[in-house]
Amino acid sequence: MIVSGTVVADSSTVLDDGAVVVDGSHIAAVGARSDLVERYPDHREVEYDVVAPGLVGAHVHSVQSLGRGIADDTELLDWLFDYILPMEASLSAHEMEIAAKLGYLELIESGTTTAIDHLSVAHADRAFEAAGELGIRGLLGKVLMDQRSPEGLLEDTDAALAETEDLIQSYHGAFDDRIRYAVTPRFAVSCTEDCLRGARELADRYDGVRIHTHASENRSEIETVEADSGMRNVHWLDEVGLTGEDVVLAHCVWTDADEREVLAETGTHVTHCPSSNMKLASGIAPVEDYLDRGINVALGNDGPPCNNTLDPFTEMRQASLLGKVDNLDPTAAPAETIFDMATVNGATAAGFDRLGKLEEGWRADLVGLTTDVTRAVPLHDVLSHLVFAARESDVEFTMVDGEVLYEDGEVTVVDADAIREEARAVAADMDLSEARKQAQDAKP
Amino acid sequence: MIVSGTVVADSSTVLDDGAVVVDGSHIAAVGARSDLVERYPDHREVEYDVVAPGLVGAHVHSVQSLGRGIADDTELLDWLFDYILPMEASLSAHEMEIAAKLGYLELIESGTTTAIDHLSVAHADRAFEAAGELGIRGLLGKVLMDQRSPEGLLEDTDAALAETEDLIQSYHGAFDDRIRYAVTPRFAVSCTEDCLRGARELADRYDGVRIHTHASENRSEIETVEADSGMRNVHWLDEVGLTGEDVVLAHCVWTDADEREVLAETGTHVTHCPSSNMKLASGIAPVEDYLDRGINVALGNDGPPCNNTLDPFTEMRQASLLGKVDNLDPTAAPAETIFDMATVNGATAAGFDRLGKLEEGWRADLVGLTTDVTRAVPLHDVLSHLVFAARESDVEFTMVDGEVLYEDGEVTVVDADAIREEARAVAADMDLSEARKQAQDAKP
Repeated sequence: MIVSGTVVADSSTVLDDGAVVVDGSHIAAVGARSDLVERYPDHREVEYDVVAPGLVGAHVHSVQSLGRGIADDTELLDWLFDYILPMEASLSAHEMEIAAKLGYLELIESGTTTAIDHLSVAHADRAFEAAGELGIRGLLGKVLMDQRSPEGLLEDTDAALAETEDLIQSYHGAFDDRIRYAVTPRFAVSCTEDCLRGARELADRYDGVRIHTHASENRSEIETVEADSGMRNVHWLDEVGLTGEDVVLAHCVWTDADEREVLAETGTHVTHCPSSNMKLASGIAPVEDYLDRGINVALGNDGPPCNNTLDPFTEMRQASLLGKVDNLDPTAAPAETIFDMATVNGATAAGFDRLGKLEEGWRADLVGLTTDVTRAVPLHDVLSHLVFAARESDVEFTMVDGEVLYEDGEVTVVDADAIREEARAVAADMDLSEARKQAQDAKP
Repeated sequence: MIVSGTVVADSSTVLDDGAVVVDGSHIAAVGARSDLVERYPDHREVEYDVVAPGLVGAHVHSVQSLGRGIADDTELLDWLFDYILPMEASLSAHEMEIAAKLGYLELIESGTTTAIDHLSVAHADRAFEAAGELGIRGLLGKVLMDQRSPEGLLEDTDAALAETEDLIQSYHGAFDDRIRYAVTPRFAVSCTEDCLRGARELADRYDGVRIHTHASENRSEIETVEADSGMRNVHWLDEVGLTGEDVVLAHCVWTDADEREVLAETGTHVTHCPSSNMKLASGIAPVEDYLDRGINVALGNDGPPCNNTLDPFTEMRQASLLGKVDNLDPTAAPAETIFDMATVNGATAAGFDRLGKLEEGWRADLVGLTTDVTRAVPLHDVLSHLVFAARESDVEFTMVDGEVLYEDGEVTVVDADAIREEARAVAADMDLSEARKQAQDAKP
């Protein structure tokens, strides 16, 4: 297949009237359209106004999709213990599957081709199967919670780690290696030392398995960890093995200079989630400082209950605007930096090589967008347009690993209307009252 | 006409399966669809998933539309003196008309039915005519700049005020009173005391004419005003008559407690522009404090060069998220408050009575939106959805004063494709080099 248009190959390379040739799961060539159409006469050509690398959502909760909008404008502890955790605890296997499908559907329609996805404690297999069915690339993991957690989510440490190992054996490298495993402790607050050390052991035992967790998102979290461990959160994570080049820490809003030095020295990846950090009033992550220290910072939407969308374009815009006002500097967080965060930095965090740019030999994950909207008129700079003015509704084409998932605004791999319909029905029937009662005992 | 769907009549009133009956320019009834369809059998019915009051963009620069994306990630003084002012100075009458049409087109397609619009120094008549042609409601004004301004924009004080008076006589109350006049000094920095006092005199001389200006957007501005006048900016504006119930001040980021008291006591309206304040790194306006003091706060996108869109839904989301993180309180800036800012508060600032809610006897300015998008699944709370997840691409219907401007996603009053095409052509030919040279002398 040839995908042609204005090709944004990466944050510094734009080809007007360009094209990307896809052979199998990889990119065979990137260049001038006229040349490539001549060189590959047998390839079907599709044209979009803009062709770009697929976006990487480097911290997402697909299975929270059924909770979109259930707890807006709510205090954090109420948000978590009255809504989010009860929802996760109460979803049946089938409901978890629908939730995951809704999440992956939104991601694919929005131009996100790779997700680092924090699932839930139970029924993670349903999300893995859904990811395989919808064709998205992802680093997924069942959540570990073995202390300070509501009934229905609280697990025995050994059982949780054993189930994780089963899932690694079933799904790590599954679906033509589009899906890989991240051992996923929820956060230090809800995990014992044995659990955290067990997570590191599992990641070390299986080649390519990574670690993904929340870290230093809010102040009460770091206070709790410090009371438990006598250390700042990142130091504690480092102590138990949860830093390193195979570790993705979401948020990292509240870190001090010493902790940042640990992140830099260990090559730990940070996922910035600006909309979530704003909506939950967590604070503003020191992204500029992380980048200055050479830390790899990726971008994530977090979950629909704290965003409320999975639109990677809105998130790029948000990351830039928040960076500018936080630094009182309009040149901070420029489009190029933000686009890197949302593409190649995310791919690096997810551990997929040759991903996040459109280059010969790289993985064929890409998107096509229209610019036939008033928001795109005039269009002085296409990269800047993608960061500041584009929206998920502009995405018309999504390809992962050379497979077309979305074309001309239609999802090709599943019945999108049926997923939306079933999700509406499940959400309407969702009854959190029992799980909410159970969660109150664990509420701080 | 009957417009039916889930009717969000205002921030606290939602009617499932509701309808709004429009007779002429006003709303004849709001209620249950089944009742109203029976009571008004001769009215054509159109159905949308959600029906809401038209949004009010309470600070916009329609004529900057051709500069969308020309100066992203740029230092403020460069942004202003190398791009924005040179662009305004160099636009011909015809180009100004195209710029204004592009702006109003985007507003109408995005669900904004009323704009408080800061035009430019020259060719304001073209924008008034464009507003009339496209059918939007607005409070518009030619810009006044009689000191510290580039050649090409700098005007003689008396001539500027005389042209303002001509425009008031031509356009205040024009187009069935959809268009009204606001005397529009750019900001205190670029206006002499005579000019500012002259603005107040004109507003007092003509019934219903209001005043609209920028105030306390950034720190260098307030320092300059303080050096000139010996007063904080809002005190200076108050001194020369530019506070009061007929005054709209955009931004108000940098005000102290005494200034806020003046705003409250005088009934001055404030327009919050969160995306612009973030992108230009101006700072964060103390909106919560303004609201606590009883100040009427409206919402605005500002111009495409500093946003980069005129999407009122993205702006609502931004206002809420920024308010939450700024206050470190996830219950701050809740959906109801934000929706009021974007509707009825904006209408109050613009000086149109019975505007901004869907009520019997109120002006028939309303929008229809689809929720047949994955972003809207599930939909727990429609008001919350409008603030946190909806986007301009969901808008399918826009009515102003009972006239349909946009229906089923098609603009009915002008050839939208032709406007976009002409705007692309004009922008591609735009040459700012001469005007940029002229502007350097005025650059601080």
